Amino acid sequence: MTQARTISIADLETKVTGIFAQAGIRPETAQAMSRVIVAGERDNCKSHGIYRIEGCLRVLKAGKVVPDAVPRLLEGAGPILQIDAAGGFACPAFEEAKTALVDRTRSFGLAALVIRDCLHFSALWYEVEELAREGLAALSMCPSYSSVAPSGGAAPLLGTNPFAFAYPRKGPHPYVFDFATSVVARGEIELHRRAGKPIPEGWAIDASGKPTTDAAEALGGAMLPFGGHKGSAISTMIELMAGAMLGEFMSAEAYAFMGGTNLLPRHGALILAFDPARFAAQTGRDPIAEGERLFTAIADQGARLPSQRRFAARARAEAEGIALTEAEFRQLDRLAELGLAAVDA
Amino acid sequence: MTQARTISIADLETKVTGIFAQAGIRPETAQAMSRVIVAGERDNCKSHGIYRIEGCLRVLKAGKVVPDAVPRLLEGAGPILQIDAAGGFACPAFEEAKTALVDRTRSFGLAALVIRDCLHFSALWYEVEELAREGLAALSMCPSYSSVAPSGGAAPLLGTNPFAFAYPRKGPHPYVFDFATSVVARGEIELHRRAGKPIPEGWAIDASGKPTTDAAEALGGAMLPFGGHKGSAISTMIELMAGAMLGEFMSAEAYAFMGGTNLLPRHGALILAFDPARFAAQTGRDPIAEGERLFTAIADQGARLPSQRRFAARARAEAEGIALTEAEFRQLDRLAELGLAAVDA
Repeated sequence: MTQARTISIADLETKVTGIFAQAGIRPETAQAMSRVIVAGERDNCKSHGIYRIEGCLRVLKAGKVVPDAVPRLLEGAGPILQIDAAGGFACPAFEEAKTALVDRTRSFGLAALVIRDCLHFSALWYEVEELAREGLAALSMCPSYSSVAPSGGAAPLLGTNPFAFAYPRKGPHPYVFDFATSVVARGEIELHRRAGKPIPEGWAIDASGKPTTDAAEALGGAMLPFGGHKGSAISTMIELMAGAMLGEFMSAEAYAFMGGTNLLPRHGALILAFDPARFAAQTGRDPIAEGERLFTAIADQGARLPSQRRFAARARAEAEGIALTEAEFRQLDRLAELGLAAVDA
Repeated sequence: MTQARTISIADLETKVTGIFAQAGIRPETAQAMSRVIVAGERDNCKSHGIYRIEGCLRVLKAGKVVPDAVPRLLEGAGPILQIDAAGGFACPAFEEAKTALVDRTRSFGLAALVIRDCLHFSALWYEVEELAREGLAALSMCPSYSSVAPSGGAAPLLGTNPFAFAYPRKGPHPYVFDFATSVVARGEIELHRRAGKPIPEGWAIDASGKPTTDAAEALGGAMLPFGGHKGSAISTMIELMAGAMLGEFMSAEAYAFMGGTNLLPRHGALILAFDPARFAAQTGRDPIAEGERLFTAIADQGARLPSQRRFAARARAEAEGIALTEAEFRQLDRLAELGLAAVDA
């Protein structure tokens, strides 16, 4: 068994920033990426934590991301705010646009942030949670690359298209959910393949479009959307709203651009933000207190709110540091030392 | 077997308008309600067709809807448009606000319509389809009344909270979906109960919170959301966005107000509209043509787009009239003759 020792959030951020900067990524971008990746590790979302560093380096090595891209806010004064990530990673674009998005939302009551031409490697909860901490409700969605068959279909077309939402709360943390619109993440099927275990029915179809419980056949076929035709409809909506409508790639084009699913996809993203205080202004009701009534009722019947496990892990990490295995520490050192030479493109 | 004969769309609209007007409903409201109900019947959505007339009359007889309510647009010039249905049915409020919503969306790029204090008896596809015919993408959602347990919970709290989306297309019909966020509609469980048939696993829990396949126990317990914790999260989002955020009832309060699930719920509704031409303006891409690429790819792999059955039924109804059974014709005559006396409150 590997032993775990801990590292503080700040120290891990410094370490991860160093890896990215060393690899030639613009310092501000390296910092933004590090904050998001360490937030995943801190919240014990291992699949969005330091594990993601290599994927970021791989796409850089492949020349499919612009390491020194400077996100640029586009002109326009209305409730649609646009930022061009210029072929760089999405997180510095979000950071750059966040204050303006909050201002526009407070000013208009609702606003949209369009992130153009970005590589989105992180969970969407990070962004909507930040907005909810400003007192806003927020929705976020983006395509990914074709790996999911539409309900009733036979081949990969839709992405795993994540959908995230946050609503402000009175307590320390907002209400936040974030999920892939596939039944499971692709990595979950890969883990089954490595373990030689069958996957449950309903997760995937094989290359001929037939249901399969064989993980390798599933990876060569297509994943299925969650919730049958309803989840498929939501995933399709995400292709349209965050792809076609924005004039950005949908998942099929993102797949074609990267030539497969081994590299991070490149596409746009859509974030919608709402000011509950404005929407409820004329009613005399407190929209945040109303939300609390619902959350209390959910908790009172023994159901768990999404993200609670994440927030608990965060509290532990803030108090005691982030626990990593020795293998993880060694890998961080290796990435810091070798940079791009440590990964295959 | 009952024989079917047909009635033209226009004649059925006149008949249904007459029933509502006869029952004391304001003529403009009666017409708006009739258009929506006949659209359901025309599209062979029997559960949203003339079957709904009695439910509208029952809530009227119970004194829980304002029959002569005049929807009133509230002041405000930004991208949030609000209309007070004043305790009346939702459809005349939507009709009244529609042009202003389209104008605001074209002007700002996106806009929200808040319908306050309404009874929403119809499918949401009607509204989003109308907006997509104006070239807009549209999302619509509303609470209903507590009949669904949150994922991991034991008692009814969430509504069947419908979620609808439409996107404009080049052909005769837009892309439209509309679904309840429960696994099935409550009426489906009621039909199983009447037929003495068990319901499939995963539809519902009994009053003690345990999974059940007994339809009667399910009706005394709670339905379950579609897609497990993901569908439950979307249903919760709808409570928040279209209830708490607007300062309108969530499903629990709507249930309490009506004293049960026998009468139509009263609450608010949220419609979000987007102008794809504005979102894609700087990209040189045609967002509608991009959507067609996705729809073609879905159809090419043998998957069906939502609403296609509805549009096929509509084409038949427009060409040949709407087929009703003799029993349905007799019931329409009975409702026209007896009005409120034909129903129990």
